[in-house]
Amino acid sequence: MNVADLLRVRPGSPVDLRSIDASGTPGLEGPREQEKAAAATLHQQNCDAMQSLQYLLWAERRQALLVVLQGMDTAGKDGTIRNVYGVLNPQGVRVTAFTQPTERELAHDFLWRVHRATPAHGQIVIFNRSHYEDVTVVRVQNLAPKEVWSKRYEHINAFERLLVDSGTSIIKIFLHIDRDEQKQRIESRLSDPTKSWKFAASDISERKHWDDYTDAYNDAISKCSTAHAPWFVVPANRKWYRNWAISTITRHTLEKMNPRTPAAKFEAGSIKVD
Amino acid sequence: MNVADLLRVRPGSPVDLRSIDASGTPGLEGPREQEKAAAATLHQQNCDAMQSLQYLLWAERRQALLVVLQGMDTAGKDGTIRNVYGVLNPQGVRVTAFTQPTERELAHDFLWRVHRATPAHGQIVIFNRSHYEDVTVVRVQNLAPKEVWSKRYEHINAFERLLVDSGTSIIKIFLHIDRDEQKQRIESRLSDPTKSWKFAASDISERKHWDDYTDAYNDAISKCSTAHAPWFVVPANRKWYRNWAISTITRHTLEKMNPRTPAAKFEAGSIKVD
Repeated sequence: MNVADLLRVRPGSPVDLRSIDASGTPGLEGPREQEKAAAATLHQQNCDAMQSLQYLLWAERRQALLVVLQGMDTAGKDGTIRNVYGVLNPQGVRVTAFTQPTERELAHDFLWRVHRATPAHGQIVIFNRSHYEDVTVVRVQNLAPKEVWSKRYEHINAFERLLVDSGTSIIKIFLHIDRDEQKQRIESRLSDPTKSWKFAASDISERKHWDDYTDAYNDAISKCSTAHAPWFVVPANRKWYRNWAISTITRHTLEKMNPRTPAAKFEAGSIKVD
Repeated sequence: MNVADLLRVRPGSPVDLRSIDASGTPGLEGPREQEKAAAATLHQQNCDAMQSLQYLLWAERRQALLVVLQGMDTAGKDGTIRNVYGVLNPQGVRVTAFTQPTERELAHDFLWRVHRATPAHGQIVIFNRSHYEDVTVVRVQNLAPKEVWSKRYEHINAFERLLVDSGTSIIKIFLHIDRDEQKQRIESRLSDPTKSWKFAASDISERKHWDDYTDAYNDAISKCSTAHAPWFVVPANRKWYRNWAISTITRHTLEKMNPRTPAAKFEAGSIKVD
């Protein structure tokens, strides 16, 4: 079974993050060092394939790919972008990081700023955080009443359906780390001077709401993993596993999209260059 | 002498593209195969250095880099982006391609759409074509009267001064190919089915204006190569030379910017992670 199938959350089957081992390596269950070496090789092959497929996607200019990255603080969103999507040609890729909405953005519905950032045909767009913040942090921090955020799951599913119907494939990836792993990662930001710029006071304050975030993600992933826009829960304590799993999922999605070089718009031999 | 110094157009010294050999390899004048191998190795080192410097630029979040790419059709703008800037982390880089302005853009001054696309602190932005189209194609195609476009050189210099004064370094690169090389490249788009999607009828019609474009670029580069935002004329018939020269220029610019990890905003040992 392909790792994409192993990690995909089936529509209608509720997910419970508490029951999923964040240090697990589904699909690579052999001796650790052996699997780690295999994953590195396969990851490199995935990256090469992604480059070729991106070129065809760009040439074809009829489809697009949207990758949504979510996870607790320090889950590895930035590292995933660097290690997986860093191989892509920047001309066809865009990363949009969604931070606290501005006043202007808050004066619109929650999908307004998100819609503006969706990919055009030929493009790959990575969301570093996304509209899923509007049913997780907004819920946990009580930034909107329940009657507001509870309606959003349906809005999200309809919005994603619109994108898919217009030629955009969607992959949604939850980087699953556990509380112990987060502790270690925050501590390394605190002790390593080259990482201290990444530390934010919110790393500590948000951590206190770990359980509430887990509940919010359980609901978001369960309600919004659809056939057209699936969620993947990727165990992410081990970075080598995370990179391999995500490059595999991305490669398989691009292969299914099957982009092709368009036919020439001129007749062979009909044009002379002076 | 560093290749950046060799290729930089000195402020106030008029450039004449007709006198510059597009097949030349300034700075790499030894036996061809030997220089080619050396360039490949040095280019790889430049790319590694650019990755590290980009990381620091992003962490520091106080400066930005803007790279302007111009050149005749088929000069290699896309290939430069893929081969030089493709190594950067997409989270900190953005490519903006300026095509024909929309009606909305035309209802503003010519720098309006350009200004919106400039990099924020920490970012690297690549312009695939730029505001220099407004003093080249606009002039050659008579899209605006001379009294309009002739004032633009000063507007451009003032605009670029504004960016530099706000922490953005600017590199402007003219990819210099000759008419024979363009002929070969267009012919290969016509004969190779995997490249035919790149062919546009304008490749043929614009080529008829080669001399006018050369005049327009001579003026634009001569009038707008300033100490704060220099032009580099890069001989680009040979792709291996072009890639090496541009990665060298970019690396040296980033080194001069000297980005640094910011100091920690907390006292060491003062924060506990529960």
